[in-house]
Amino acid sequence: MGKKAEIKRLRKKLKKLKRALKRAGEAGGGGQPPVSPLAPPRFPDLPAIEGVRFATVNSGTKYVGRPDVMLAELAEGTAIAGAFTRSATRAEPVLDCQAKLGGAPSGKAAILVNAGNANAFTGGRGVEAVRALTGAVAETLGIARERVFTASTGVIGEPLPHEKISAHLGALALGLSPARIRDAAEAIRTTDTFAKGAGAAVEIDGRRVKIAGIAKGSGMIAPDMATMLVFIFTDARIAQPALQEMVGALVGSTFNAITVDSDTSTSDTLLVAATGASGVDVEGSAEFRAALHGVMRDLAQQVVRDGEGASKFVTVRVTGAASEADARTHAFAIANSPLVKTAIAGEDPNWGRVVMAIGKSGARAERDLLTIRFGDVLVAERGWVAPGYREEDGAAVMKAPEITIAVDLGLGEGAATIWTCDLTHGYITINADYRS
Amino acid sequence: MGKKAEIKRLRKKLKKLKRALKRAGEAGGGGQPPVSPLAPPRFPDLPAIEGVRFATVNSGTKYVGRPDVMLAELAEGTAIAGAFTRSATRAEPVLDCQAKLGGAPSGKAAILVNAGNANAFTGGRGVEAVRALTGAVAETLGIARERVFTASTGVIGEPLPHEKISAHLGALALGLSPARIRDAAEAIRTTDTFAKGAGAAVEIDGRRVKIAGIAKGSGMIAPDMATMLVFIFTDARIAQPALQEMVGALVGSTFNAITVDSDTSTSDTLLVAATGASGVDVEGSAEFRAALHGVMRDLAQQVVRDGEGASKFVTVRVTGAASEADARTHAFAIANSPLVKTAIAGEDPNWGRVVMAIGKSGARAERDLLTIRFGDVLVAERGWVAPGYREEDGAAVMKAPEITIAVDLGLGEGAATIWTCDLTHGYITINADYRS
Repeated sequence: MGKKAEIKRLRKKLKKLKRALKRAGEAGGGGQPPVSPLAPPRFPDLPAIEGVRFATVNSGTKYVGRPDVMLAELAEGTAIAGAFTRSATRAEPVLDCQAKLGGAPSGKAAILVNAGNANAFTGGRGVEAVRALTGAVAETLGIARERVFTASTGVIGEPLPHEKISAHLGALALGLSPARIRDAAEAIRTTDTFAKGAGAAVEIDGRRVKIAGIAKGSGMIAPDMATMLVFIFTDARIAQPALQEMVGALVGSTFNAITVDSDTSTSDTLLVAATGASGVDVEGSAEFRAALHGVMRDLAQQVVRDGEGASKFVTVRVTGAASEADARTHAFAIANSPLVKTAIAGEDPNWGRVVMAIGKSGARAERDLLTIRFGDVLVAERGWVAPGYREEDGAAVMKAPEITIAVDLGLGEGAATIWTCDLTHGYITINADYRS
Repeated sequence: MGKKAEIKRLRKKLKKLKRALKRAGEAGGGGQPPVSPLAPPRFPDLPAIEGVRFATVNSGTKYVGRPDVMLAELAEGTAIAGAFTRSATRAEPVLDCQAKLGGAPSGKAAILVNAGNANAFTGGRGVEAVRALTGAVAETLGIARERVFTASTGVIGEPLPHEKISAHLGALALGLSPARIRDAAEAIRTTDTFAKGAGAAVEIDGRRVKIAGIAKGSGMIAPDMATMLVFIFTDARIAQPALQEMVGALVGSTFNAITVDSDTSTSDTLLVAATGASGVDVEGSAEFRAALHGVMRDLAQQVVRDGEGASKFVTVRVTGAASEADARTHAFAIANSPLVKTAIAGEDPNWGRVVMAIGKSGARAERDLLTIRFGDVLVAERGWVAPGYREEDGAAVMKAPEITIAVDLGLGEGAATIWTCDLTHGYITINADYRS
């Protein structure tokens, strides 16, 4: 074979292999992962919340050349509510936050977050680290230790070098500024592919109340699981028990309505802080509740959009279940099924796998009452493929980056909506290959 | 650049890409999948069971150039017991088998199995197909319809062309032979990468009782889920209720103790047929029970060894749980966790993910009482990494093709063992890419 022909042949082969490799989700090979294709176009303009100041710093605990600690200082009287992982092997900072939540909101408060080390499963040293950090923050800012909340995300099982973080508290205190919420969102990332923020402003009795929140999670978290941390700030005035009730009621249809891979972090933490600086009392306000709900849902969906290896954003909507609990069980069974998730990754309208997931969920279902839709396309009804269904219609729906799978069980009024992403080679690459 | 240098450069690049592609599990690209690396070296020599004859044929329903239907004829008086998928969207053949199990073992019986079409979620046509097939077998063999059992595996939602199968029943009846169990194991495969068989012989009161079983499942099942079908034959004499009790008791620690991806087929079927031809009564025989247990466990483990994309065979052993149910819940949480499974695929001794899986399972656990071992290596104890643990020791365990993860909860006497495989690029390729 001539050299020219040989070059041509090799180039062709190379092109083919590159395509195959791209399909396998390994293109690029090393270096920083690209931003998720499902990410919002940019970080939103968040309103400054009166009574909240942020600062960030690089502590040298893990990451190089980027801030990995954020401190938020909260004005006197700020009410703090929260929701946490239900894991039985919760990390120490989670246990500490849970113990402090009910406390009276006297004096200033603070939230300290570090990325890179989860301070989880570190035995007695975990307790010591939390005590040392909360003590140091309390002293630096002149506030009560009971008003200092911490969250840690990153590697499990390694002692947190808390003195490295404490050494920067003076600098953090000096750098506090109401404008630095985006820096805070960047600092709490581990290997999220984008910083997550959402905000809202509502008029209540002619006065303005603002909400701004940040989150991290579900990105390429090396070397451990995708911890979700969420911090939401508002200048609304509300008593802690009322705020806690509101957060508890909204978490089910937001942060507890998403799943990437069915695994649950030992460190998941949501804190909502209301400074009261607007002077607007929002207890019982439907507008405020709706606005907070919107911010929580937006941040929750952004976590799914940064799901490890995600190429599709999927809404699973279940209606007609015997109860709301049954609807959630079915929706999570569909959203967590590896066979459903890989079919979506392959743009395959494989409704048989949806039938399978409903069947295995354990919640009530009757095969011959099921209706399944992909997007607007009626796929199956009355226990069989719909008479007018054409495979190409289902396939067209699956090609979009955002897909809705709707199931009606025909049994009752129970309904639930869950958001998830697909399961791709990218997920395997992130979670299996990074140490090799 | 000279042509020679260009060729050299392209060749080097090609080599690099090929390696990357191999890692991504897509090497080979098209054609038949290779036999699972975890497969036994060969199909075992199974004893012929007096009273059982097999025949196979290519029916032309789906596969070309290989048998895809198997018929087993069972001698008069054969007792038949079974266990089935608990899916709420069970396929029609499963419902039909379940309805027939309790029947009196009068006259001959038969089992008809087809591969390629699951006759699942096919509405009224599914019932018709089962009625037509059982009727045709009954007529051909001169037996009662109530003694004809069927199982179907393959694509969901397409009507089963039962007349194509019925057309071959005459030929099947003529071809019946006691020696053809291996052919039967081959005929029920969909895209399993190897045929699965296991056998045993026991002496009871100086007389020999034989057991031979075949299975399919968890291989590359295109285009639907990995249905598990198992058929076990013995010449033992035992009444149907006693056999049913034995099968029901043993299924929990065998076929219900394995998981590939947490998904459950709508068609999973286990049938155990005892012809009685040996004349040896095995009711209450511990030896027989142990032998049957061994055959069932062997077949169950072979299904895991053919798990989609599997590169590691994993035993998850949980002890010290508050109850046996809790032990199973923890063991399945570990075995089904995508993060644990991908860590195993990456040969990463990531015990933090095991802690996470225990924490999320919902069963009782106390973080600071956990002990975790990878193989013989003590990894974590008392809520933290074990003092003597070295990462290289854990990593060495993970390199083997067979891995044991042992967890002691330190709470009680509950114990359970579950077998699973890892989660690799191969799984994604099989389940996402085959239609593209």
